[in-house]
Amino acid sequence: MAEAAKVSISTVSLVINNKVGARIGDDARRRVQQAIEELGYRPNALAKDLVSGRSRFIGLVADAIATTPFAGQIIHGAQDEAWRHGFVLLVANTEGNEDAEREALAMMLEHKVRGILYSTWYHRQVDLPTGLTEADCVLVNCFSTADVPAVVPDEETGGHDATTMLIEQGHRRIGFLNTTTPSPAHDGRLAGYRRALAEAAIDFDPDLVIDVQPDQEGGYAAVPALLRLGVSGVFCHNDRVAMGLYDGVREAGVAVPADLAVVGFDNQEVIAAHLRPPLSTVALPHYELGQAGVRVLLGLDEVGDDGRLTVACPPVPRGSVAGLRPGVIAEPSPGAAR
Amino acid sequence: MAEAAKVSISTVSLVINNKVGARIGDDARRRVQQAIEELGYRPNALAKDLVSGRSRFIGLVADAIATTPFAGQIIHGAQDEAWRHGFVLLVANTEGNEDAEREALAMMLEHKVRGILYSTWYHRQVDLPTGLTEADCVLVNCFSTADVPAVVPDEETGGHDATTMLIEQGHRRIGFLNTTTPSPAHDGRLAGYRRALAEAAIDFDPDLVIDVQPDQEGGYAAVPALLRLGVSGVFCHNDRVAMGLYDGVREAGVAVPADLAVVGFDNQEVIAAHLRPPLSTVALPHYELGQAGVRVLLGLDEVGDDGRLTVACPPVPRGSVAGLRPGVIAEPSPGAAR
Repeated sequence: MAEAAKVSISTVSLVINNKVGARIGDDARRRVQQAIEELGYRPNALAKDLVSGRSRFIGLVADAIATTPFAGQIIHGAQDEAWRHGFVLLVANTEGNEDAEREALAMMLEHKVRGILYSTWYHRQVDLPTGLTEADCVLVNCFSTADVPAVVPDEETGGHDATTMLIEQGHRRIGFLNTTTPSPAHDGRLAGYRRALAEAAIDFDPDLVIDVQPDQEGGYAAVPALLRLGVSGVFCHNDRVAMGLYDGVREAGVAVPADLAVVGFDNQEVIAAHLRPPLSTVALPHYELGQAGVRVLLGLDEVGDDGRLTVACPPVPRGSVAGLRPGVIAEPSPGAAR
Repeated sequence: MAEAAKVSISTVSLVINNKVGARIGDDARRRVQQAIEELGYRPNALAKDLVSGRSRFIGLVADAIATTPFAGQIIHGAQDEAWRHGFVLLVANTEGNEDAEREALAMMLEHKVRGILYSTWYHRQVDLPTGLTEADCVLVNCFSTADVPAVVPDEETGGHDATTMLIEQGHRRIGFLNTTTPSPAHDGRLAGYRRALAEAAIDFDPDLVIDVQPDQEGGYAAVPALLRLGVSGVFCHNDRVAMGLYDGVREAGVAVPADLAVVGFDNQEVIAAHLRPPLSTVALPHYELGQAGVRVLLGLDEVGDDGRLTVACPPVPRGSVAGLRPGVIAEPSPGAAR
């Protein structure tokens, strides 16, 4: 282009970018514009970004969010919020491969992204990869001991609200199928369960808490032990555990919700609304986590003194909780699939 | 940088890129290298790409693949194959929003990507967005009437193999819960079902095919009609239909697989292996589709004369199919979760 117009590269750049106050002769400007015409020139983002020293990208380095069925809405929320502010979300899903992670970060830094979101498909503590903090960065659905802002789900309030859905229907003897995996979800949901019981003046009984493999097989296997406890309601660590529990109690001739009220956690797309009966649960706010990550990155939202912004896990009532008291039957939410 | 080194931008570029044969004085080269040192300069991919006129990106424009729980493995396969050849996969998930799609394509074209994959979360015909064909492009999990190579799943052979899993166990009266949604999956799986019957000299009976809403609710609702048909085996359009069918037949006192053998389609991650019994199914080869898309883009794989490369849908036998004949019981695959 510069050659075709017989001007310097920087003159081309100034014309293309309509640089205000740039001293460019009419003749040079005309030659550039003519060359643009002749060459069928497409505005070159590389040239524009090179001049401005930054790009319109926000990077998202994820472990497996784009490729598992669990947390894709993090990407959805982040990309919507990025677009809203004129940025394109560049996603590098690394499957936890350290080489891929390093290369993706290097590429993003070289391309002078506005900032980087580092995110995981389940809520956990992470070691920050080298290079991450060379850009503005925000952790999403994870956190670290380093001084980097983190946006995380409010597991504790989620566990509290799940348990409260059962308490409000008169249940007092409430089991909790927690996970065997040590995690913020394990600890937070348990703390929430205990707080909800305490608020209702129900003594915490550790015998009512069973840690299970956090999937359908874990829920199914726990059924005999759970039924021996004589609970009238159960809070499950996630919707997959509840799905396995449904199969087990059905085989035992126990009906949900008439004989046993069930609450899950996650509001997982292909499961929760499609069980019989549809599952009352608490939503992991993946979309909102992605959104908040971009907002914190751009300085539109702020983290607390502890470096964290917690995002609420809203209750989603459906048909799997009914009252113990005669006449009190939980109604499914209007939008729930039956 | 150029300012700090008191040389022209193009001299900086030549030094950074070790341009062979470039006539740069020792003094200018030294000044640039010193400035690099002083400024803590990170090799600027923008500058390098600007000089070479192309980038190390392959673009993936997707409708909702990253954000639904269904087809994320397309991204996984594409990114693995892209990395293997030194490219970074840049994902723009547009949720079918035309503005977002146009902007993502424009951004990719401006950044001179090596090529663009255009992909959808379910197999369908698409209208190509403006601008797509300005770059090398390949359609993945979709196709168009335009002359653009497409990589698609082999629905027909998938339907054939699913039906054959039942025929091989002695079933002759086999129902098919197909989808009410007109689609390549509807037509291809039906053609495969018919071909498998024909090969086994079983007359096709249109009464045994029921089109249902392609989810759990559709499978559940079809149970009374299906049971009236007196079939011993059923092929379901997808795993979600099979999951709803399981609930319905259980309520009717019909056992899977003893009374009714069931085969699904998709091998959906959170469902198929976790049903009771685990579901025999046919896998949608999402990972392989993404991989093949990159390979076709890079000229490593070729499409046929019809512009298509079809990818096989491999059977995944588990516990939901048992033989009609005494003593013939299907074994679950060794890796299947029970």
